[in-house]
Amino acid sequence: MRYAITVEYDGAGYSGWQRQKNALSVQEVIEDALGVLLGKKTVIIGSGRTDKGVHAIGQVAHFDSDKKLDTFRMAFALNAILPEDVKIRKMQAVSDRFHAQRSAKSKTYVYRTYVSRADSPLRKGRAVKVIPNVDVCLMRKVANSLIGEHDFRAFSSTGSPVNDYVREIYDIQIKQDGDEIDFYITGNGFLYNMVRIIVGTLIFIGRGKLPESTVKDMLETGNRRLGGKTFPAEGLYLYYVEYPDEENL
Amino acid sequence: MRYAITVEYDGAGYSGWQRQKNALSVQEVIEDALGVLLGKKTVIIGSGRTDKGVHAIGQVAHFDSDKKLDTFRMAFALNAILPEDVKIRKMQAVSDRFHAQRSAKSKTYVYRTYVSRADSPLRKGRAVKVIPNVDVCLMRKVANSLIGEHDFRAFSSTGSPVNDYVREIYDIQIKQDGDEIDFYITGNGFLYNMVRIIVGTLIFIGRGKLPESTVKDMLETGNRRLGGKTFPAEGLYLYYVEYPDEENL
Repeated sequence: MRYAITVEYDGAGYSGWQRQKNALSVQEVIEDALGVLLGKKTVIIGSGRTDKGVHAIGQVAHFDSDKKLDTFRMAFALNAILPEDVKIRKMQAVSDRFHAQRSAKSKTYVYRTYVSRADSPLRKGRAVKVIPNVDVCLMRKVANSLIGEHDFRAFSSTGSPVNDYVREIYDIQIKQDGDEIDFYITGNGFLYNMVRIIVGTLIFIGRGKLPESTVKDMLETGNRRLGGKTFPAEGLYLYYVEYPDEENL
Repeated sequence: MRYAITVEYDGAGYSGWQRQKNALSVQEVIEDALGVLLGKKTVIIGSGRTDKGVHAIGQVAHFDSDKKLDTFRMAFALNAILPEDVKIRKMQAVSDRFHAQRSAKSKTYVYRTYVSRADSPLRKGRAVKVIPNVDVCLMRKVANSLIGEHDFRAFSSTGSPVNDYVREIYDIQIKQDGDEIDFYITGNGFLYNMVRIIVGTLIFIGRGKLPESTVKDMLETGNRRLGGKTFPAEGLYLYYVEYPDEENL
């Protein structure tokens, strides 16, 4: 039997989603909890990695079990032994064809900022401060040029070579509410630090620190150095992973 | 010269707003920081107390200084020495007639909850979990009967006798967004634990644990025991203090 879990975590205490030697990962604490409850080593497959310090509101993972599980009781039992910064928000039986990574149609990240000269105590570790003023309309206009299929090598950190830098961004929504500006970015996949570089570049443009043409120039030249800084992990959340309807998730 | 400050704080580390012996208050850390910068003991007057563990997004206070202050630099300098859980979000010169407590026309508190069987790691200490299901429409209907001038003694904690239990609630907004339900309550003043008892009672009614008539019965009989439990401090925020326009704040 295959089961899918939707996981929320505060990434501050973790080296990221993926299990690794010599550093604590979210995958490891969930696998350890499952191992205790199922009585055997159990591997979970996530929709993808999240980097060190990055949060998740809706990370999805799957695992297999010989036993038929009562998902309601199992989620409750898992949450009772999981640390308080990692919790299962949903658990359900899925078909054997469901695969948390390969079945995913799109992923949405949200990056949270607030415009202020002073730090916000209540958003510490949850959103990143941006010094005023920020032109949100300009950022929305520029963000539109990122939508579609592009070679995003200028929006990836060096030191993480991949074969293919082409990704498709389906949508970017920049929502403003009071002093908050949140960036919702949906795509078929993301390069290392891609969301954090997109947000850093948009913010620099919105603050007038970089010209409006920057995004276009980066896409054309592939030159990372033209962009804004890589914004910190603490503002970034894996928000939602979309699956085809027939996966029933 | 009189100055007003708007203060945001994470209440978790404090015994409340008001200075007291043998316990750390928000007022004390701000007065100490002002004392360092102004070179003399400086008293600040808040719009009112907040209780132990209660947060503020927009607490307002005033203080007097012989010196004419550059509010921009002063706020920056204050924030540099204040602890990270207390920050000045705004500072401005006001007329000598302005009084943070006596000039206040109304106060708005927000109480944040989320409906879930599992704890939300990212909202730990910021919102309170409510077990499903909750009937929001019913809570809105019942909340309307709290609006207006009433004797709210049934919505105050014992052990805090006051002469007059009459307060006026101007507005209650119950906003739902995803799994979150936030209660915005505006009034001319609040008794000890009043917001937390209102929210606890509305939630109990919304979950079908108390009858719809509970609020009416509490207002009529003055009996605290008819209501729901006093909800925890960590979901409560002093959100906004309103002043007359001529106060220019």
